[in-house]
Amino acid sequence: MITSHRNPTLQEVRRLLAKRENGRFVAEGEDLVAAADEAGWEPVVRLRAGEDVTHDALAKVSALGSGSRELAVYEERWGVPTGRLCVALWGVRDPGNVGTVLRGALAFGAASVAIGPDTADPYGPKAVRASMGAVFAVPVARVTALSDLPQPTVALVAREGEPLSRADAGTLVVGAERTGLPADVVAGCDRVRHIPIHSESLNAAMAATIALYEVSRTHA
Amino acid sequence: MITSHRNPTLQEVRRLLAKRENGRFVAEGEDLVAAADEAGWEPVVRLRAGEDVTHDALAKVSALGSGSRELAVYEERWGVPTGRLCVALWGVRDPGNVGTVLRGALAFGAASVAIGPDTADPYGPKAVRASMGAVFAVPVARVTALSDLPQPTVALVAREGEPLSRADAGTLVVGAERTGLPADVVAGCDRVRHIPIHSESLNAAMAATIALYEVSRTHA
Repeated sequence: MITSHRNPTLQEVRRLLAKRENGRFVAEGEDLVAAADEAGWEPVVRLRAGEDVTHDALAKVSALGSGSRELAVYEERWGVPTGRLCVALWGVRDPGNVGTVLRGALAFGAASVAIGPDTADPYGPKAVRASMGAVFAVPVARVTALSDLPQPTVALVAREGEPLSRADAGTLVVGAERTGLPADVVAGCDRVRHIPIHSESLNAAMAATIALYEVSRTHA
Repeated sequence: MITSHRNPTLQEVRRLLAKRENGRFVAEGEDLVAAADEAGWEPVVRLRAGEDVTHDALAKVSALGSGSRELAVYEERWGVPTGRLCVALWGVRDPGNVGTVLRGALAFGAASVAIGPDTADPYGPKAVRASMGAVFAVPVARVTALSDLPQPTVALVAREGEPLSRADAGTLVVGAERTGLPADVVAGCDRVRHIPIHSESLNAAMAATIALYEVSRTHA
């Protein structure tokens, strides 16, 4: 059993929680590790408090503190954006929003989530946590151009275009909360759609999830 | 201009940020204070850095730290639950979720949000922030019984009952993320509905917002 937080494996965990490297990332907490198991991800390293490592040593490298009873290190997986229903994030810098979109993508059956420019790392610790394990179940892909995405591309904006309807399956392209999608990205999409609201704005993750709900709807 | 953080007004702000009292609460940040202005709320106290108070003294009582340039104290307002579309929260302890539901309620035109038992204070600092100002625009009410709510009451659950449809306007009754609604609350509601999902769960705020979207939909 590992007893010192100076142990090289724990030091790697600590480094990965601060700044990822070598294509590896950490999932912390029993629920996340269970989600990875269920999705068939094999950990590179798995550390259970009281079994592989002492509670104290684990708590010292943990991002969550002494409450953490388990963590594991995985190799990142990057795919290509596919499917009848895909979400592409463009300039979504908040990792919590990226994780929440992954959770929504899983809930409403999106085949993949495309990570566009200026978007938070889906394998960063905050995104992994916010995804509640969905990061292990929904394929993620890196993209740099709209042409990489499944067609049609549907720009989700605050007010322009038509209201989003269930006929708009394809790739939902979602921008940052305050600034929205850049004008050239909107112009480059096949369709421009909005979610009709009474107020100023929805947050990016909420807008993306409602959009997924709308286009995946079969029960109305 | 107030220069000392020992000033009685600043001490009241600090106390209200820690634990509310006397039916007053604090909104911190220019966006929130602007939302209150727009909704016609008169502050009891308004403090602008460099104008009413020094930057340093304001930073010392701020929950947000030195970035805060303005805050204001308001009197709580409690109404009764009304409207064709209402959301009732039952056991939603996370203040961020309560604030997010307020934001969703404003976006999709709910007439009020009812705060049921074991639910976070909508006027606490985290809920106010998460609401992005919606707490000033959507009436909130305290309720202890389902009979206090606009009819029909629609229990939003994970899997039982029919899928939620736009015919389900009334009061959407939403429970805690992990435990859901207590069985007696579900049994006491007029209808039991779920949002069809492929995964285990949605968070409470997401489920409530999607439900509001669904029942307020007029464009499908």
